[in-house]
Amino acid sequence: MNDAFDFEARFAKGLPATQPKWTAFPKYNFIGGHNDPESIPVEGLIESTARVLRRRGQTIATYNQDCGPLGDIEMRKFLAGKLAKYRGMSTTPDDVLVTSGSGQGLELINEILCEPGDTVIMEEFTYQGAMNRLRARGINIFGAKLDDGGLDIGALETQLDDLAAKGIVPKFIYTIPTVQNPTSSILSVERRAALLSITRDRGVPVVEDECYADLLWDEEWPDSMLAMEGSDHVIHVGSFSKYLAPALRLGYVVAPWSVLSQMIACKGGGTGALEQMVVADYMQNHYDEHVAALNVRLKTKRDALIESLEVNFGTTAEFDVPPGGIYLWIKLPEQVDTLKLSEAALKAGIAFNPGPQWSVNPDAAKSHLRICFANPSVEEIREGVAKLAEVCFEETGIPPRSANVSRE
Amino acid sequence: MNDAFDFEARFAKGLPATQPKWTAFPKYNFIGGHNDPESIPVEGLIESTARVLRRRGQTIATYNQDCGPLGDIEMRKFLAGKLAKYRGMSTTPDDVLVTSGSGQGLELINEILCEPGDTVIMEEFTYQGAMNRLRARGINIFGAKLDDGGLDIGALETQLDDLAAKGIVPKFIYTIPTVQNPTSSILSVERRAALLSITRDRGVPVVEDECYADLLWDEEWPDSMLAMEGSDHVIHVGSFSKYLAPALRLGYVVAPWSVLSQMIACKGGGTGALEQMVVADYMQNHYDEHVAALNVRLKTKRDALIESLEVNFGTTAEFDVPPGGIYLWIKLPEQVDTLKLSEAALKAGIAFNPGPQWSVNPDAAKSHLRICFANPSVEEIREGVAKLAEVCFEETGIPPRSANVSRE
Repeated sequence: MNDAFDFEARFAKGLPATQPKWTAFPKYNFIGGHNDPESIPVEGLIESTARVLRRRGQTIATYNQDCGPLGDIEMRKFLAGKLAKYRGMSTTPDDVLVTSGSGQGLELINEILCEPGDTVIMEEFTYQGAMNRLRARGINIFGAKLDDGGLDIGALETQLDDLAAKGIVPKFIYTIPTVQNPTSSILSVERRAALLSITRDRGVPVVEDECYADLLWDEEWPDSMLAMEGSDHVIHVGSFSKYLAPALRLGYVVAPWSVLSQMIACKGGGTGALEQMVVADYMQNHYDEHVAALNVRLKTKRDALIESLEVNFGTTAEFDVPPGGIYLWIKLPEQVDTLKLSEAALKAGIAFNPGPQWSVNPDAAKSHLRICFANPSVEEIREGVAKLAEVCFEETGIPPRSANVSRE
Repeated sequence: MNDAFDFEARFAKGLPATQPKWTAFPKYNFIGGHNDPESIPVEGLIESTARVLRRRGQTIATYNQDCGPLGDIEMRKFLAGKLAKYRGMSTTPDDVLVTSGSGQGLELINEILCEPGDTVIMEEFTYQGAMNRLRARGINIFGAKLDDGGLDIGALETQLDDLAAKGIVPKFIYTIPTVQNPTSSILSVERRAALLSITRDRGVPVVEDECYADLLWDEEWPDSMLAMEGSDHVIHVGSFSKYLAPALRLGYVVAPWSVLSQMIACKGGGTGALEQMVVADYMQNHYDEHVAALNVRLKTKRDALIESLEVNFGTTAEFDVPPGGIYLWIKLPEQVDTLKLSEAALKAGIAFNPGPQWSVNPDAAKSHLRICFANPSVEEIREGVAKLAEVCFEETGIPPRSANVSRE
């Protein structure tokens, strides 16, 4: 196209930075929240499409079908049933707003609760997308201390009181209690109860993001916080991105009508009806088998990643073994700057997320990195980690030995 | 849900008003941009779903599939080909951004170009959604004069010069040149050329919304403005809502990379991949036959509406016969206040859009109303118009005669 006209001279001030044109994914794609291509239930989705379009296809001729702005009624019924069965929640279809990915849900929460200069508390290491959205609105973010069990509730209580002493009541606390991103910790039921109590007492809403709560492998895990006593200040967020397919852009928010009605007023339009109808039908019929099969594949990939790290990085890569999810949060020795390493790695076709981008205080995760193991094949995981060790050694001298062979 | 916690006390200031819970559509649904349920190509969409998911289903495991943030490559290829063939445009797939409805496209245009206090020019009667989005951002809107042929270019030139004398350069002019909403006028090629010239000279971008350009029945109509010489200041917007299905939420923007790259940075996520893939495949194979069949049905409904109005309202309902689209813009006698009438009508199960909501100056359309004839059946159109005449007579004494029978 002819682009002689100077649009940029007319742009509003303060717009976010642009990216170059997209070309292709890197060969070893450990970045973002991409998922396992082999687990896409192609035939099941085709069957569901035929079924729902023959039953209700004509409803797509009207905005929001025949369901109103909360979203497709069959999708909201599936979600209410699933959240009751697997997350212990007493949810009706009218408590659910379907969103275009959980990202839109988070954006709407920010929009209805926050103004520039407000304060929000997040886990000290947390989801970059949620952090970026808040920063773009001029929100002050405070990081709350994490340990192996997730949020340190005692430290959080002190932090809330310190803020209160300065006259600051956070607009909300954002937490990922079940398979935390990026650390993969699971908050115990005792800590959940304590978190609810100290926040309810202080009038601070809790946003619980349970995008990964379907992806646990070996253990029992607690119900969602919204299922517990004293949780009427909780807004619950979820997604199909992590247990079905991120490109579908399907997420949801569970909250009281006072919250949902304000979110609808800000939402600006419905979420794609075909995706809602098809996914609702597929999950109504196949949730258990689909999630079980996906989790077998994810666990296999986690194991391959950990084995590859042990072989190639030895003791220089420190991590907790994740009980579920799609990420591994790794600490390398202090002399490794993962922002620099990520640039060198990308030249070798390896993409990972450097720790500083997943940390409220970037310096606190200078030597951390996050690896998503869901998208690459087991073979690509093995090759990619071996190559990453090569690049890392060239850049930093770490790891000095790989596969029991000294590189020096 | 337990809603004892007072979320509303924590809401940000200046949020838009909320609506009550949705219940059901009115019996006679002449409101909004809903479409013809019988024209949804159920079997064709099922076939396309099977074909695209078997071919490329695994791509939905990654954000934005394997296509990057502009959208599904097959969708962008279809659009580039369609816009070349039917709208005369030299468009490549890289000039197209797929959006979640054209509404998201308009929102992104506002976001990258406008700050509070800026000025935008719109047609004096125009799309309520576009107006509301601008007003929510604190933009000053000036209405440009319309006549039977669309924008009055001479009046617009004077208006631009008057604004310039006050130091105001509008951020853009928003126009619907091909089947204007709500008036259904078509801007001639001569007026398009003049509009391009006077705006290019003054450095004012033009946003051309061609959501209805596929829905014309009897006549030849001009290419889009972006197809013409001297159009490098034009941003082109389109949608599948009006010729396929609004609940799918599929629209697009065609613009230079400088504009699209900034829109991507603000977009916050992709548009649903299943809908993009399915619709691209369906339209690649069936565009001509689908649009031809839809237009036969729409024209039949238009004819039924006009006949019903003539029978029930006689000469009290003034309108131009639309050459396409889905709307009729009607003027009733001065003593009819269509905002009041719409409330009385809704109690009788009849919904229409009162003119003031589709007018930059609400008072200028006090006695106008917009009827969408695409969604109701021919039978519902006939019944609904007859009932509307009854309600209108009860409320206003207009029309005094219906079907050649005096009501008085």
